[in-house]
Amino acid sequence: MSAAEQKIHPHATGLAAKTVEAHQEPQDLVFYSGWFCPYVQRTWITLEERGIPYQYVEVNPYKKEKHFLAINPKGLVPAIEYKGKALYESLILCEFLEDAYPDQSPHVLPEDPFERAYVRLWVDHVAKQIVPGFMRTVQAQDPEKQREYLVEFNKALLTLAEKVKGPYFLGDRFSLVDVALAPWVVRDYIIKEHRGYSREAVGGGWKEYAEQLESRESVRKTQSDREHYTEIYARYLKDEAQSEAAKAIRAGRPF
Amino acid sequence: MSAAEQKIHPHATGLAAKTVEAHQEPQDLVFYSGWFCPYVQRTWITLEERGIPYQYVEVNPYKKEKHFLAINPKGLVPAIEYKGKALYESLILCEFLEDAYPDQSPHVLPEDPFERAYVRLWVDHVAKQIVPGFMRTVQAQDPEKQREYLVEFNKALLTLAEKVKGPYFLGDRFSLVDVALAPWVVRDYIIKEHRGYSREAVGGGWKEYAEQLESRESVRKTQSDREHYTEIYARYLKDEAQSEAAKAIRAGRPF
Repeated sequence: MSAAEQKIHPHATGLAAKTVEAHQEPQDLVFYSGWFCPYVQRTWITLEERGIPYQYVEVNPYKKEKHFLAINPKGLVPAIEYKGKALYESLILCEFLEDAYPDQSPHVLPEDPFERAYVRLWVDHVAKQIVPGFMRTVQAQDPEKQREYLVEFNKALLTLAEKVKGPYFLGDRFSLVDVALAPWVVRDYIIKEHRGYSREAVGGGWKEYAEQLESRESVRKTQSDREHYTEIYARYLKDEAQSEAAKAIRAGRPF
Repeated sequence: MSAAEQKIHPHATGLAAKTVEAHQEPQDLVFYSGWFCPYVQRTWITLEERGIPYQYVEVNPYKKEKHFLAINPKGLVPAIEYKGKALYESLILCEFLEDAYPDQSPHVLPEDPFERAYVRLWVDHVAKQIVPGFMRTVQAQDPEKQREYLVEFNKALLTLAEKVKGPYFLGDRFSLVDVALAPWVVRDYIIKEHRGYSREAVGGGWKEYAEQLESRESVRKTQSDREHYTEIYARYLKDEAQSEAAKAIRAGRPF
């Protein structure tokens, strides 16, 4: 861990700070977060979308508290504590919130079994093609590789864009596909500024869909001020980040 | 595609051939299979475990039928056709079978939301650590890399083995963790014969658990004769296989 990594901003800012403030009271469900983390934001968006009561706890990645490590030995965020037990992995947490709060509307997974599977298929595309494509593009240092990965990333976005019914993936209904994707959409200015990405260049209505995602209330409410993300991504852009995801991308491993 | 790859045995043999024979009648659910594929076997085991009526259709990977490609343009197996629409991806299909047949017992996912998430977490470990670890070990050509990957693979197995309650992952109940893992357990003789793997060397009760998985009826009923797998894995062992999974492993990409 580099000294630079230890200077992460200690808490959420902007609209996200207000959301944090509104979720300080103890609740059955404790949400262990890192304000900067896109995986965290998936779970956070789901909590906000579904109106599930939760207590927000910021985890300092370099000073993890004893209780947190006791229930969640890997120390990963996002994590939740529910009836004294911990769970982690962003998409598994989103599915858990569906299962554990069946009577709380709205849902991010449709009721119909076929539609649920269809959503999971596209979430899988986000997880296996889009997110690693974004990270490869950010972390690549060789300009030729950066261009190659950007082309590949744009192609993965277009494949999804062509299936978007609009305004959201399934149409009027905001689903887990939108949730899984939105945190990278709101961070795409990083590759716009440093890797030549443009939403327009993707085609297939991607720009319009991206704008819908970034203006969704649950997405805006879980966003901090841009300057603090920029500090963090500066390390990714130099391929010096030491997160599990950054290391996996470097090693060509799934995460 | 090499000429060798086109000489794949055309249909299931051994116990699996009997299972195929028993599932020829038209049904609401059509199961598109490749008898040799471990991902297919996951879905097949789930169908058998749950007693869901299905029609088995063998897909020749080198001569895919028009109707199959029309409903499933990527042409991937396993796939299912349900009310005229297709779905694919082995684990998403297993989840679909849970959702679409809620009243059909037994289930491979527990009812309790926390337990479901716990099962999904370990399925994720199988998908991201164990299966790619197996394939890396098989496909590596450099003896030093083979040893390095085998050590890493054994470690991923031990991590899971330490959580096995026995006889199955959750105890008496056969769950999606067992389903997700079993197809690679029954193929582990390949790395035993060619890469120095041994179940005993893993430790943590792995050997005993592996024996439980391979003797489960649904696993045995979906297995063909060993000689025909050997033909296929000969190409993997030379790193000449052209399946999507083999190519992804070679490129260091998720699949």
